[in-house]
Parts: sequence; structure tokens; C-alpha cells
Amino acid sequence: MTLNVLGYAAQSPTSALAPFPFERRDPRPDDVVIDILYCGVCHSDLHTARNDWGWTTYPIVPGHEIIGRVRSVGAAVTRYKAGDAVGVGCLVDSCRHCKPCEHGEEQYCQNGFTGTYGGTDRHDGRPTQGGYSDQLVVSDRFVLKVPEGLDLKGAAPLLCAGITTWSPLRHWKVGPGSQVAVVGLGGLGHMGLKLAKALGAEVTLFTRSQGKEADARRLGADRVVLSTDAAQMASVAGCFDLIVDTVPYVHDLNPYLPTLATNGTLVLVGYLGGLEPMLNTVPMVLGRKSVAGSLIGGIAETQEMLDFCGKHGITSDVEVIRMQDINGAYERLLKSDVKYRFVIDMASLKD
Amino acid sequence: MTLNVLGYAAQSPTSALAPFPFERRDPRPDDVVIDILYCGVCHSDLHTARNDWGWTTYPIVPGHEIIGRVRSVGAAVTRYKAGDAVGVGCLVDSCRHCKPCEHGEEQYCQNGFTGTYGGTDRHDGRPTQGGYSDQLVVSDRFVLKVPEGLDLKGAAPLLCAGITTWSPLRHWKVGPGSQVAVVGLGGLGHMGLKLAKALGAEVTLFTRSQGKEADARRLGADRVVLSTDAAQMASVAGCFDLIVDTVPYVHDLNPYLPTLATNGTLVLVGYLGGLEPMLNTVPMVLGRKSVAGSLIGGIAETQEMLDFCGKHGITSDVEVIRMQDINGAYERLLKSDVKYRFVIDMASLKD
Ligand SMILES: [Zn+2]
Ligand SMILES: [Zn+2]
Ligand SMILES: [Zn+2]
Ligand SMILES: [Zn+2]
Repeated sequence: MTLNVLGYAAQSPTSALAPFPFERRDPRPDDVVIDILYCGVCHSDLHTARNDWGWTTYPIVPGHEIIGRVRSVGAAVTRYKAGDAVGVGCLVDSCRHCKPCEHGEEQYCQNGFTGTYGGTDRHDGRPTQGGYSDQLVVSDRFVLKVPEGLDLKGAAPLLCAGITTWSPLRHWKVGPGSQVAVVGLGGLGHMGLKLAKALGAEVTLFTRSQGKEADARRLGADRVVLSTDAAQMASVAGCFDLIVDTVPYVHDLNPYLPTLATNGTLVLVGYLGGLEPMLNTVPMVLGRKSVAGSLIGGIAETQEMLDFCGKHGITSDVEVIRMQDINGAYERLLKSDVKYRFVIDMASLKD
Repeated sequence: MTLNVLGYAAQSPTSALAPFPFERRDPRPDDVVIDILYCGVCHSDLHTARNDWGWTTYPIVPGHEIIGRVRSVGAAVTRYKAGDAVGVGCLVDSCRHCKPCEHGEEQYCQNGFTGTYGGTDRHDGRPTQGGYSDQLVVSDRFVLKVPEGLDLKGAAPLLCAGITTWSPLRHWKVGPGSQVAVVGLGGLGHMGLKLAKALGAEVTLFTRSQGKEADARRLGADRVVLSTDAAQMASVAGCFDLIVDTVPYVHDLNPYLPTLATNGTLVLVGYLGGLEPMLNTVPMVLGRKSVAGSLIGGIAETQEMLDFCGKHGITSDVEVIRMQDINGAYERLLKSDVKYRFVIDMASLKD
């Protein structure tokens, strides 16, 4: 049997997302079939739907912040059973044998991980389609357990926004005593504040907007620094062990480097492109400071993050929308008009 | 008593270095008085003599790759005695109580380390003067022991070129199994090859010049990659855990980033300025790669490096010159016409 599912797809860079019936693969022995309950709306969804990066094949069903319940499992699946609350993030497969894969860093798979949408299934060669749909078929190794008690709609954005900020916090060993700053207060940034705070760090938000102080403090910031204010920037000179920069467009990193402590790192998690204006190496050399990048996170690390969120009651601040409202939501996303993540209630697909 | 010493100084950005009698401070209880035997010639000496960085105060006596023998010690000095072979590098003091100082990273002293020349003594406020002279007075904490058996003239460049490459190799934990590349084969680069090889790494030289292969292999390179050859660059894609970039002028880092392994770091040790053309973050984000800087090294780390060199018989390849030949040596240095470090024989000062 092939699974007949209903999703929302873009048919071209300029067409609105619209209902799209399509087939998912016959579940294989290691597959989990998931009834999707919620799917977060990530900037990548919009960029892919509109082919902003030039690599989209149409039709495309976006969505990689997926929460659902197991409908059925293949014969070889032992970790999941029907009814389990589960999550799927940005990856649904990888080569599983390269060095990064062996180290649980599937997002850096040397043979290319299989994206949840816009990828190509490694076995049957069909295009992968994402979570804006009623059902999903995923190999068990790329399925996450959602801890009991976690609000399911608020958990959806953990699968991309959450893990994308969690991974650098863990890689650079943030904990009690760490000084962490987050640049930008959007879907990623608000998760960065919550997670860094829960890890025990002292947390600062860098923002260009005056009005974000109260919200930032509610989300976990101990301090808010207006990055356009030279005096405020000078007051945090040499301060941060890690700066998680979530800004998704080109911006000047030079004002941030002097705020790093000796041996500190600024890690870019939201921006792919050239660093303009040019990066000045002086603070890097004179303080052994690093500029790095980081991409989502591995599967084991994502499970670790979900378990941590379960223990600390951390979810994303979400605005729940109906599937039919996705195009309007994209327009609001472009204006950063959401606190802090849209999540699609997939029950609306049946309306 | 004040010490009357003879050095070679620049009196202005355009004047040649010439004999310069001057006074050194009265030795304090923790001071070591050193008869200088050899002093290496670093690019920084030339840049400072000519005020290329705009911070030179004249007259200036350069030199911070200093090897000598202890002439006398202050009452509080227990670690050294007359006749000991000792070294002094780029630092002669620091605040000694800030976090980096407490961690043995005096080069990143938050209150500014005292440079061997061009600095200001923290006690008497007098300008510090470097190793192009017959005697030096330095606090014992900034004096290094030279291990027995190490060739003294070849040891001089270890105090700057050696430690500048050693520090990142150690900070980024290079050892057996590591893949290390060195960019540029000059004073720093040739030490990078020797030290990385002795640490057990597999070592690659990136160079723009065809003719360096034999020398590079003799110095420790297992492989030489012509950075201007796209096919050679592609053959090392995803290869290196650490790239030590010793190039002292602006250059494009983008061709090197794809040659880093996942989690790899490119560390700049020779270039202060803007990164032009602009750095592309794509390989950084997609492989958690870092671009970092590193400055010389701390005192304990310098001693560790000297001890390691003693154990492995590592010194710099040097061309010994007379003090009177320094101006010609500077001209050759500008053309990279030295294999691989000029070292001044201070006995020539008496000629
Ligand atoms: Zn995403
Ligand atoms: Zn792999
Ligand atoms: Zn030097
Ligand atoms: Zn200090």
C-alpha cells in the first residue's frame, strides 16, 4: 500500500500554498507512520517555498518542526508504538556511517543529510515532503520522543528553533557561570534566551529595538543591550563566553567581537552569506576570539534537548494558526510580526 | 646604579637603525639581568621601527626573540642564577591578577601586557626597549629557561615565531591523528610545520609558490598543496582539524574554509586587519567551522614549548647576521628573502 496524504504545497516560487494530495512511501520495516498534530512555521519553509535559495523542486510541502502521534510502526521498530507523542525535525535520514554520523552529528553528514522536505529519499529516490500535511513516514532513527507533560503545540518549534540554539550552547559548554548573549529576538532568539537561562548561564539580549526589554526579561534575559547604543555596547566589553547570533540577514559583526571575553566565540546560526562589512581580525587575534557557524543539531542532541525541555517545562511561545492561514502567516513572518513562532494546528486540514 | 647598555635603535620612521647607548633600570629584587647572546629578527621589529602601526615612540630598540645568559639576579630571585641560559619573548610584564593572567594567558592580559619593546614599565613608567642590545633587565616571572643542549642561536626565534604557532596547536589540541595545515612558509610557517609534526599531526603546507615542496618536506610537511590550484584544493576538501594561517597581509580565506573538517578551525596568527574579500559563512554554518585569531602565547606555555623543543631537538632554521647588518636584513625580510629567520649575534655589537 502507498499512503495517500493531504498536504499544503507551493507549486511555483510565486504561487500561494494550497491543498495538495500526494503519496508517501510504503512504510519500510524501520519506519514510523505519524499522524501530524502540529507543525511549526520556520523561515526556511518560506525561503524554500519561494525558491529564495535556488534549490527548490516543485511541488514542495514545507514544514520541519513536526509533532504528532505514532499511528503504526514497521516490524523492526521497537522504540515506538502506536499513540506515542513524537517529533521530527529538519533531518529524516543521513548516510549513517561517516565520521559526523558516527559522532551523532548527522546534520554535518559528509554525504549530505536527507532534509525533511526538499530532499531525496536514499532508498527510493523520491522527493521528501514536509510536515504541512496530515501524515508522515520516517525511519525510527530520526524520530524523537516527546517527553510527557510537554505542551505539544509549544514543543513543535523545539525541533528546529530549539535545537538550532541548543546545539551551540552545548557544543561551547554553556552552564552555570557562563556569560551568554543572544543577538536578535525572533523564533530562534527567544528559544536561545530560554535555553541558555535554563542551562544556568547569565543571559543578555542584543537588540536593535527599544521595545523588547520586558519580553526579553520574561523569556530569560538578565540584561538587554541596545546594539545601536555605543555606551551600552562599551559596558559589556570583554563580557561574553558565547554570542549566539540568530539574525537571518547580512549584518555587521564587528561591534559584537569586542564584547566577547578572551577565548569567546560568536556563532552564527541564522545567516548564510558573505560577511559585510569585512570582519576585523584585530579583536580576534588580540583575544583569541572565534567566529563560527552552527547548523541545527544531531538526533541524539535533539533528544537531549527535548528531555531537558521536558524537565524544565520549556516550550516555544507560539501563535496557533489554521493550515488555511499559512499564506497570511508568511506575510507576517516577513515583517517579524509573530511572538515568537507560528504553529499550524493540523486538525484544521480536515475543515 | 643604573645599567648603561648599548643597543641599536631607530630614531624616526625613516632612519636606519644605528648604535644607541641608553640606560636600563636599576635591577629590582625580582629582576634578572641578562647578557644577550642572540636576538631573532621578527616582522614586528621592522613594523615598529618604521611606525607602520602608528604607535611607535622613538627612539625604539626592537627585538623580542632574546636568548642570553644570566649575569646577576635580584635578592628575591630563586629560579635563576648567574650563567643560566635563558630566553625572553614578546612580554616582560602583565597585571598578573586578571582572569587571563591567572590562567597563564598573560598575552591576553585585560589590563594590557607590557611589551618587551615599545611598552611602558608598570613600576617606573619608563619605555621598555628590546633585545637589539647587550643587556636586558626582566622580572624573573617573564624569563624562560632554555633547556640544555638546545642550539642557542636557533632557539632565539622560538620566543616569538615558535610560541606563536605552538599556542594555537596546543589550544586546539593537536596531537597524533590530527590533520594540520599551515598557510605560508616564512618564519612562523616553518616553525608551525616543525612543531605540528613533532606533536604527531599529519601536516600539510599551503603555499602559493611552486618551489617550496622540498624545503617544506624537510621541515615536516607530509603534503604540499598549491593554494592557487583548484584541483589540489579540492583534493583536501573537509580535511583539516586546524589550519594555522601565518600570512601577514590581507588575503582571501574563502578557499581555505572548505578544506576544514567538520568542527575545524582556521586560526590567524599573522594578520591584523579587515578580512577582504568578505568571508562566506556557508561553510562555517554547514560544518560548524570557526575562524579565530591567536596572539603569541603565555609564559607557562612558552616554557612548555621550549622544553618540548629541547626534548625533540627543535630549533629555527636561522641565518646569523651581525648587528651592523640589520638594515640590510630588514630589506631582505620585506622580500621574504630569508630561510627562515635572521638572528643577530650580539657579540658583533662589540666590534
Ligand atoms: Zn527551520
Ligand atoms: Zn553521514
Ligand atoms: Zn615577533
Ligand atoms: Zn592581566
